[in-house]
Amino acid sequence: MRIGIIGTGAVGGYYGALLVKKGLDVHFLLNTDFEHVRDNGLLIESKDGDFALDSVNAYNRSADMPKCDIIIVALKTTHNDLLKSILPDTIKENGIIVMLQNGLNIEKDIAGIMPSATVIGGLCFLCSHKIGPGHIRHLDYGSIRLGQYGKNDLTVGVTKELQLISDTFSKAGIPIHLTENLGRARWEKLVWNMGFNGPTVILNATTDLIVKNKSSCAMVAEIMLEVIQAARICGYDISEDFSEIMLNATKQMAGYSPSMKLDYDAGKPLEIENIYWRPIYAAEKKGYDMKKSRILAYQLDFLDRVNRKNV
Amino acid sequence: MRIGIIGTGAVGGYYGALLVKKGLDVHFLLNTDFEHVRDNGLLIESKDGDFALDSVNAYNRSADMPKCDIIIVALKTTHNDLLKSILPDTIKENGIIVMLQNGLNIEKDIAGIMPSATVIGGLCFLCSHKIGPGHIRHLDYGSIRLGQYGKNDLTVGVTKELQLISDTFSKAGIPIHLTENLGRARWEKLVWNMGFNGPTVILNATTDLIVKNKSSCAMVAEIMLEVIQAARICGYDISEDFSEIMLNATKQMAGYSPSMKLDYDAGKPLEIENIYWRPIYAAEKKGYDMKKSRILAYQLDFLDRVNRKNV
Repeated sequence: MRIGIIGTGAVGGYYGALLVKKGLDVHFLLNTDFEHVRDNGLLIESKDGDFALDSVNAYNRSADMPKCDIIIVALKTTHNDLLKSILPDTIKENGIIVMLQNGLNIEKDIAGIMPSATVIGGLCFLCSHKIGPGHIRHLDYGSIRLGQYGKNDLTVGVTKELQLISDTFSKAGIPIHLTENLGRARWEKLVWNMGFNGPTVILNATTDLIVKNKSSCAMVAEIMLEVIQAARICGYDISEDFSEIMLNATKQMAGYSPSMKLDYDAGKPLEIENIYWRPIYAAEKKGYDMKKSRILAYQLDFLDRVNRKNV
Repeated sequence: MRIGIIGTGAVGGYYGALLVKKGLDVHFLLNTDFEHVRDNGLLIESKDGDFALDSVNAYNRSADMPKCDIIIVALKTTHNDLLKSILPDTIKENGIIVMLQNGLNIEKDIAGIMPSATVIGGLCFLCSHKIGPGHIRHLDYGSIRLGQYGKNDLTVGVTKELQLISDTFSKAGIPIHLTENLGRARWEKLVWNMGFNGPTVILNATTDLIVKNKSSCAMVAEIMLEVIQAARICGYDISEDFSEIMLNATKQMAGYSPSMKLDYDAGKPLEIENIYWRPIYAAEKKGYDMKKSRILAYQLDFLDRVNRKNV
């Protein structure tokens, strides 16, 4: 069984390294870090113990990679336009694609590009950063919630492909939770992501400062409730309590910069389209106007462009 | 006729200096700049011609001021709690109070404190900054829209007191527009103020950058429409076109930092209560939820506190 990792950063580098460590046949596609990783391998600093992989299978062109049974996509969604050329190069007929990304309708896009593949969504609950080429710091957590994409978002339950991915990851020490309703899991993740990712950029603050302040905490709570309302209108019944659960969980966590804040600080494009606009448009299509979230999305669009000197 | 100026900054210092220049008997209440202005007077750099007043009547305690026929309040609203002690010290029985401030229901507050006074609201269309103690730079514009406050916001038309203030200011070269509907004028000003004051702080940008970017311009337009909707619900029929007129006017203006941005950059408290929360609460009382404006207000609360190291 051959596994390909598309995007070897904080997410793909970390999980890929765990799979290599378990003895699996893993192939990494890289961009900027290619030469460094080809020559030096990967270095993982982790709260569970540091480890180095002195030599890994590294590629900088998808055409050079061997065809894989499983492809794990851990690119930022801002680069998803590359997948329509990368995936046909790298995956076997009837292979399995695991999307470890944020946002909405990602699996649907991929099913459109690769209709013969099994597409699985993975929602990572992971605090990790890339701190240098091929050098990843895993701070906390690490579980993945996995669910299989069914055409038109219909649930398909736990198939043998989903079970294979679950078993493979679990054996590598990655805590796995299975869901039969990927759409609902995506919206549940959006509750936190829309509540916190944007505000940490807009307010230039870590999550702890945001939940400590009465006004910003009220704002996050209102955004979360709006996302829950949108999810319901889109057919996913998430309880209103869920926002409070998410807020309280965040209050217990150490101060944290979510991925969008890390991208912003690194001058990288932000995942506004997938984390904000797609849910906003999905709700709009059902007649619900996410007024509050749209204000955040507008602000992020502006800040992202200025940040990349591109107003 | 004796005139007192409460708050000798970018607004009070500028208009007060014009009144002195015209030969009127003007008395300035100061705080931090008191000693400098007592010893050196006021210096106005203006697009209409610079001028210096080498000696002015300066006070740092309201109890030391002579009682005035007219009091012009040009404090930031964040200091309005001081007025209940300053006004009784400084105004004659049946005097006239002119409120040159931003926000909503300011005149009502003052009528509550000083029931025997005539209370007039003034909406300044002025670009000026204080650039040093007693040193004001007048960049552009300068007109004031004046309207008299009537109990319970009832319109009282153009009274002899309003005419007196209008004549006095006009003679000093200040362009004056009279309004018979102060409440409506206040909401009209809020359309621009709520649309731009907060966003320039939140996005750390001047007005020109905000109107040039499609997303931030769309945000401002949505906020303006929400304010117009709130005004209507509160009984002031402002046309929806008004937001477009304001946006287009701003596109024609040079890039500009409104007062809230200048306050933020100077580490001063922001007028969030008067410019955002009061209109939000007024609309809420009539059953209308200003969802978008509330997001801005929450963000401003947070940024203001962090800015003043006070989370």
